[in-house]
Amino acid sequence: MHYKKIIKEIKESDNPIKKKASDYVDSLLKPLGSLGVLEETAIKLAGISGSVKNSFDKKLILIFASDNGVVVEGVASAPKEVTAIQVGNFLKGVGGISVLAKSAGADIRVIDVGVDAFLDIDGLYDHKIKMGTKNLAIEDAMTIEEAELAIQKGIDMVFEAYEDGYQIIGTGEMGIGNSTTSSLLLTALTKSSLDKTVGRGAGLSQEMLEHKKKIILQALNRYENFTEDPIKLLTRYGGYDIGAMIGVYLGCAYLQIPVVVDGFISGISALMACKLNPLVKDYMLLSHKSMEPGFKLIEETLEMEAPLNMKMRLGEGTGCTLMFKIIDSSMAMINHMGQLENNNIDQCILVDIREDLI
Amino acid sequence: MHYKKIIKEIKESDNPIKKKASDYVDSLLKPLGSLGVLEETAIKLAGISGSVKNSFDKKLILIFASDNGVVVEGVASAPKEVTAIQVGNFLKGVGGISVLAKSAGADIRVIDVGVDAFLDIDGLYDHKIKMGTKNLAIEDAMTIEEAELAIQKGIDMVFEAYEDGYQIIGTGEMGIGNSTTSSLLLTALTKSSLDKTVGRGAGLSQEMLEHKKKIILQALNRYENFTEDPIKLLTRYGGYDIGAMIGVYLGCAYLQIPVVVDGFISGISALMACKLNPLVKDYMLLSHKSMEPGFKLIEETLEMEAPLNMKMRLGEGTGCTLMFKIIDSSMAMINHMGQLENNNIDQCILVDIREDLI
Repeated sequence: MHYKKIIKEIKESDNPIKKKASDYVDSLLKPLGSLGVLEETAIKLAGISGSVKNSFDKKLILIFASDNGVVVEGVASAPKEVTAIQVGNFLKGVGGISVLAKSAGADIRVIDVGVDAFLDIDGLYDHKIKMGTKNLAIEDAMTIEEAELAIQKGIDMVFEAYEDGYQIIGTGEMGIGNSTTSSLLLTALTKSSLDKTVGRGAGLSQEMLEHKKKIILQALNRYENFTEDPIKLLTRYGGYDIGAMIGVYLGCAYLQIPVVVDGFISGISALMACKLNPLVKDYMLLSHKSMEPGFKLIEETLEMEAPLNMKMRLGEGTGCTLMFKIIDSSMAMINHMGQLENNNIDQCILVDIREDLI
Repeated sequence: MHYKKIIKEIKESDNPIKKKASDYVDSLLKPLGSLGVLEETAIKLAGISGSVKNSFDKKLILIFASDNGVVVEGVASAPKEVTAIQVGNFLKGVGGISVLAKSAGADIRVIDVGVDAFLDIDGLYDHKIKMGTKNLAIEDAMTIEEAELAIQKGIDMVFEAYEDGYQIIGTGEMGIGNSTTSSLLLTALTKSSLDKTVGRGAGLSQEMLEHKKKIILQALNRYENFTEDPIKLLTRYGGYDIGAMIGVYLGCAYLQIPVVVDGFISGISALMACKLNPLVKDYMLLSHKSMEPGFKLIEETLEMEAPLNMKMRLGEGTGCTLMFKIIDSSMAMINHMGQLENNNIDQCILVDIREDLI
């Protein structure tokens, strides 16, 4: 389905079912609110699925790989070639995301949306748009058509996953240079200072970080006018991976399946998707607080908080796998805990102190 | 083995193996340090087990149930009877800890160390010391002999679990009034103000909280002299559940098996165990940040940080079950990720920025 139609047709999640789930959670054998995020998660997921009780056994991480022309400017600690190598490693089962997804009972699908190499790897989804984006420091990273195509690729991957029976999706990416593209998008969207939006990525020294900021400023200065239009921003600064992840958030919201956000690159994509339609937020769950400084700004802008403080900064969708496990625990709670009234504890003894704790 | 001998014979965890594990983690397919807490956890567990690679498939939560005489003062939101009822619910499989432990692949053992009721429940471990402690507001909660016995019970349960093949243990408790005993112990140990040590427990109103603080002050004022001796403090303020959990930490450290700390009550017990022998800390992992305000002070005093920010305040060992899942992910990382040198990425490209990120 065309992405513009998807954006128009996204619906709010089911508020009456959320209320019903919230009441049910309050009837369980525990003080009101005492399972915190497990409760909030169960209620949110009920609103998404339309049922109070749920299970999300078929889990998938969609990992979009793409190269970024800006790496010629020396903004990344690893050479461009690592993008292609890691795609191979993910599919060999030896990457971080490969082993962490397996531990969470999740499958992975790796999609080439713009790796700058000819890849012939079993199991790889080939949706290459181009051999990497152009150098955003001196020209637009991509055309409007490419930006729209990237979003569409993400949506199509969600529809395919949905048809294959997946019940929950997490977003991941691999692309040397993509903390630079993300920082640019975040700066443009929030008009914040570079201190709040630019970080060390995978492993920049202090000196390299200053250089990265210089390149980002140069890219911002290519245009006199600011814009908050996500499609225009994507065109200016890329990358294809971010475009595809925007599509994943839109597609999941349209199909009403929950989608878990990983770290910084996933987070800015989530923010862009919410800019296209704020109702997308109803279908999104944050996972972990990325060590990249811009993630805090993403949380503030989304008015959401990631519950896991793992000091991680790998990307690939690794944070999503941990949140999948938390979601399983949340489902164990709502599906299997006993209720106060059936287990000798009268509900009247419970005082609701949740408001006071905020 | 007698608890005093245990305290004397606890050894440091294995630093050379930790160094080896740390080097191995740095050889994996990722930027240095980019899996944060998953890396730190794998390294700590290597030091405990003495091997770089590990798995902790046989997991156990030990839940100590006990009543606290101080509840006659009206310091708790639920009546005392709930302790005994919940013991039954845990063993019926409908309690929060029952379903969350199952979701984490963990077993539970429920131990009566001082419930004020005659319990005849299949599967319950009967190690009742007395029918609850005395009212700490007006007299010592227990005798020295009882305090020592409670610690010994905890140690004995760890030895039994170890013989049964359990490889990792989490602590849990059930005891109406035990946030009051914990706050007292924390205040006495850290000499902090009640604003930092006393909270709303399961569900106190603002008015009830003020009353709880008054009772805590009254108990503190029974003695003119402060003491930091954990055994004396346990005698003054209780409870049996806390004593037994101190024993669990000591026993795990002695047997060199990892032990996961749950929330506030577990946390103060962990602090008391570390007071008896600071090396216990080598074997402890925190799980979640309890909503009880005193937990922050426990983290500061231990100089450790709980990685999960779940807004939970249930106790029972529920936070440990989530950390068990994180530990499984950490083991997936160290056991199954590929290494840079075998997967086409030369290690020399990696810049170590971990120091800069602190």
